[in-house]
Amino acid sequence: MSDNTSSRTDPRRPRGVLAPVLTPFHGDLSPDARRLARQCRWLLAHGCAALAPFGTTSEANSLSVDERVNLLDAILEDGVPADRLITGTGACSLTDAVRLTAQAVRRGCAGVLMLPPFYYKVVSEDGFFRFFSEVIERVGDARLRIYLYHFPPVAHVGFTQKLVERLLRAFPRTVVGMKDSSGDLAHTKSILDAFAADGFDVFVGSERFLLGGMRMGAAGCISATANVNASAIDRLYQAWRSPEAERLQAEVDAVRGAVEKVPLIPGLKAIVAHHAADPAWLTVRPPLVDLSPAQRDALLGDLAALKFAMPGLRD
Amino acid sequence: MSDNTSSRTDPRRPRGVLAPVLTPFHGDLSPDARRLARQCRWLLAHGCAALAPFGTTSEANSLSVDERVNLLDAILEDGVPADRLITGTGACSLTDAVRLTAQAVRRGCAGVLMLPPFYYKVVSEDGFFRFFSEVIERVGDARLRIYLYHFPPVAHVGFTQKLVERLLRAFPRTVVGMKDSSGDLAHTKSILDAFAADGFDVFVGSERFLLGGMRMGAAGCISATANVNASAIDRLYQAWRSPEAERLQAEVDAVRGAVEKVPLIPGLKAIVAHHAADPAWLTVRPPLVDLSPAQRDALLGDLAALKFAMPGLRD
Repeated sequence: MSDNTSSRTDPRRPRGVLAPVLTPFHGDLSPDARRLARQCRWLLAHGCAALAPFGTTSEANSLSVDERVNLLDAILEDGVPADRLITGTGACSLTDAVRLTAQAVRRGCAGVLMLPPFYYKVVSEDGFFRFFSEVIERVGDARLRIYLYHFPPVAHVGFTQKLVERLLRAFPRTVVGMKDSSGDLAHTKSILDAFAADGFDVFVGSERFLLGGMRMGAAGCISATANVNASAIDRLYQAWRSPEAERLQAEVDAVRGAVEKVPLIPGLKAIVAHHAADPAWLTVRPPLVDLSPAQRDALLGDLAALKFAMPGLRD
Repeated sequence: MSDNTSSRTDPRRPRGVLAPVLTPFHGDLSPDARRLARQCRWLLAHGCAALAPFGTTSEANSLSVDERVNLLDAILEDGVPADRLITGTGACSLTDAVRLTAQAVRRGCAGVLMLPPFYYKVVSEDGFFRFFSEVIERVGDARLRIYLYHFPPVAHVGFTQKLVERLLRAFPRTVVGMKDSSGDLAHTKSILDAFAADGFDVFVGSERFLLGGMRMGAAGCISATANVNASAIDRLYQAWRSPEAERLQAEVDAVRGAVEKVPLIPGLKAIVAHHAADPAWLTVRPPLVDLSPAQRDALLGDLAALKFAMPGLRD
């Protein structure tokens, strides 16, 4: 079905731990490109094989398309390596998805991570197929590599196995993988069983499923908490076949568990703000809201008890 | 709570039947401003008290913000009266919502119909309040009139009564009404009971609820099927207190029932295309798809059996 190229044989296709990078904001809620670029570099030096900016955790859908385009340009100009980025480019609007995806390809990004158009909730398989076909044809660039972003708990629409199969058959060199944020390893397994042999790379959407996923043939994880805990998650990724794997999984689960007690995005921002000693990181865009001081104290206390650290973040 | 101005005393606040106007597209899927302006004029001459372009039925979220801005400018320049428009300006992105809303106010639109930001599904009341507060403050124009677009079946997020109350208390001259597309007259009643006395105008989201809604104090309806059946719906609106009301309600329900047998937006476009003898109207943007020929034939046959007509549409 595909050309059997995969991340196993193609070094341009990332494997391992990817962070959907948090988007820092200025006090006026405009995106802060300088802080974002610095954070990208820190993440690449501390466990991330690649980055997935402009994802759910990045509040990307809370940005305008102009803001997204300008922010990607700015971090690339600031030296963030395009070939280590799989940028989020899905959108409700066909023309937005085309514009964002064309920019990512033109700027040399390793790939794009695409949500399906998520406004209408009753959409046929034909409708999603037609949407992705239009994007791929309009971008019209053989370098395009699309990872499908399957996230039913938030998008409320997703990729059926039959839709993936149709897309792979029609665009075998372009549709190359999935971020499976279904939260269901049985779903991950069904996708891997159906498509991994064709070189389709599946990333689990949380490190909770990393060991289980690796044992089934996953390519790694793209996880919100990789924003703060990528080194530990990468140790698990590197050692998943070792006798240490279960212990390493339990360690990353403990951190994840602490973070999941509060709303995830402001929680992660509070952790970065604390460890970077940089309160500017606390800002989220509406409709999200900051943690309360009590939530923040509890979160940081829980993490301190786990001896959690983010070395080098203040430099 | 509010200033007690309402559509009953303020002629700038529309009452009656509003159509969320279908957006026609060119063959290349770009919006067709000329056809849209012509359709707006036809609707205003055939039963619509005002129009609600850029709604769900308009495929507005399938357009980029630039396309929306340019399309509104174009139809206003083509003579569509701004003071009879309540345009959709809600968006997931704060900056998009501000840009669209500011344009509507600057161009003299009678109001805006705002979806809540609909990407994140677990959002606190504070988060939505903060979003709308930011939009209102950033637009910063006393002419702004916001109608809240409550549509949980599609947006999966909505306006609780407590949120409406907070918004009304904070912005009594700005937050002036709601389109209630909950599909639940008991919900409509709870909103009317709580806020109608303060001049809050509630439009039901389907003419199926028009008679029931009017008896509770609604201001009218904003309904997809008003795109094709506004004259009949307006007859019901005008006569809701008369002995004819039940019969008129049954008549509009019959048309609605025929349309609801197929996907609503391509179905409505097929009806306009047929009665305008203009197949360009058939085009929908992905992820929506056209009706099949069999669906179209069945729909037009059902409507013919009801003696359905759209007089003057070919002129």
